[in-house]
Amino acid sequence: MEKNFKIIIEYNGRDFHGWQIQPDCITIQGEIEKALSIMTNSHVDLHGSGRTDAGVHALAQAANFSLTTKIPPESFKKGLNSLLPSGIVILECREVPLSFHARFSAKLKTYEYKILNRHLRSALLRGFVWQVQQRLDIDKMKQAALFFAGEHDFKSFEAAGSPRSHTVRIIKDCRINLYDNENIGIEVTANGFLRYMVRNIAGTLVQVGLGKFEPEDIKHIIEKKNRACAGITAPSYGLFLKKVIY
Amino acid sequence: MEKNFKIIIEYNGRDFHGWQIQPDCITIQGEIEKALSIMTNSHVDLHGSGRTDAGVHALAQAANFSLTTKIPPESFKKGLNSLLPSGIVILECREVPLSFHARFSAKLKTYEYKILNRHLRSALLRGFVWQVQQRLDIDKMKQAALFFAGEHDFKSFEAAGSPRSHTVRIIKDCRINLYDNENIGIEVTANGFLRYMVRNIAGTLVQVGLGKFEPEDIKHIIEKKNRACAGITAPSYGLFLKKVIY
Repeated sequence: MEKNFKIIIEYNGRDFHGWQIQPDCITIQGEIEKALSIMTNSHVDLHGSGRTDAGVHALAQAANFSLTTKIPPESFKKGLNSLLPSGIVILECREVPLSFHARFSAKLKTYEYKILNRHLRSALLRGFVWQVQQRLDIDKMKQAALFFAGEHDFKSFEAAGSPRSHTVRIIKDCRINLYDNENIGIEVTANGFLRYMVRNIAGTLVQVGLGKFEPEDIKHIIEKKNRACAGITAPSYGLFLKKVIY
Repeated sequence: MEKNFKIIIEYNGRDFHGWQIQPDCITIQGEIEKALSIMTNSHVDLHGSGRTDAGVHALAQAANFSLTTKIPPESFKKGLNSLLPSGIVILECREVPLSFHARFSAKLKTYEYKILNRHLRSALLRGFVWQVQQRLDIDKMKQAALFFAGEHDFKSFEAAGSPRSHTVRIIKDCRINLYDNENIGIEVTANGFLRYMVRNIAGTLVQVGLGKFEPEDIKHIIEKKNRACAGITAPSYGLFLKKVIY
């Protein structure tokens, strides 16, 4: 009888060419499918909650795969962890109804974009934060973040040339986390994300922090529905997929 | 006229074979001396506050070098940062009296040993924490840590076969930092450290947390002055030199 399994995955984006399987590239989906095929002697399709770009990290990506097997969930977890490279860890595996689909069943996703706001590069956080040299105005960034919340057409924050027909999304929460004097996180929870959406929001909020935009400009940038009106795209390596809610 | 410069250094222990210069190995001292020789066209000796082993990280190592130069401190900082590999960052450089010596003038040093207490390995913290799989009893570790404070002969916590004649040190503070459910730090401040001392203290405290020792055993282990009585040596990569106080 066919069974459906949900897995929660932690991964280090530095080690892979993103989530999506590609020929001749080491990807997270590719490595997990390879390990699943070793365990099951068959090809198994893995469905992620969404793709992450090369360099993007995950604290708790969700995915599912279904097949006819007698292997219990705990054994999938152990087996996969022993087969996978050190940059991918399966945190959980459990059986779910056949109707569960990691992408289509997802209700909300939370990303955090991490920024190191200091003049000097970091010897220790390389590949895990975006270093912004000039001092950021955190209060202005906090004010600006509020304008993202709600149901909006986020076309201005979608990667140029993306073929998405429907660009309305609901941002439940957009906040600035201040960890210490130089470590900042931009946390965004939404019912879905357009391509580069968090990175474009993060880049634009940083430009608010640098005085290039005013907080209330965000409102107008959203209204314009034009990518050229928003700010820069933050680099991939500061981005963490934190949680997928079903 | 000869000038003396103090520098504060952040480094990623993963990238180097420890602090001390060695032929055919990339070391932190070696890389900084090489960069100094490029800047000054002469050989410059760099004196660290102490050596760190291969794999050990630093948030704020201190060192000094003296020479006859017109280069101002700020230019040393900029020049070194542009010449050094990405795993070493000069956070500060300032002129100090000729009598200042990073090692002999140091009054206190603080190290923190970082532990990830979870069953599964970490995809993201690899090389920056010691993963301990079994659940640690933090309360017992906190009780045990108190026994380290004070002036003691720490011979039981010195690397076996070390040639140090004087093994009395003063630990000003030894505490357990609990960051969240699975991230723990063992922070030790002392007037000096024997070889592997923090790693031996960390290994022994972890064994207290695992029930192999009781907190009050620490007292007796110290009294024995015998390395064989203490616990295991924690791996190098969980260790961070946090601060040197002058």
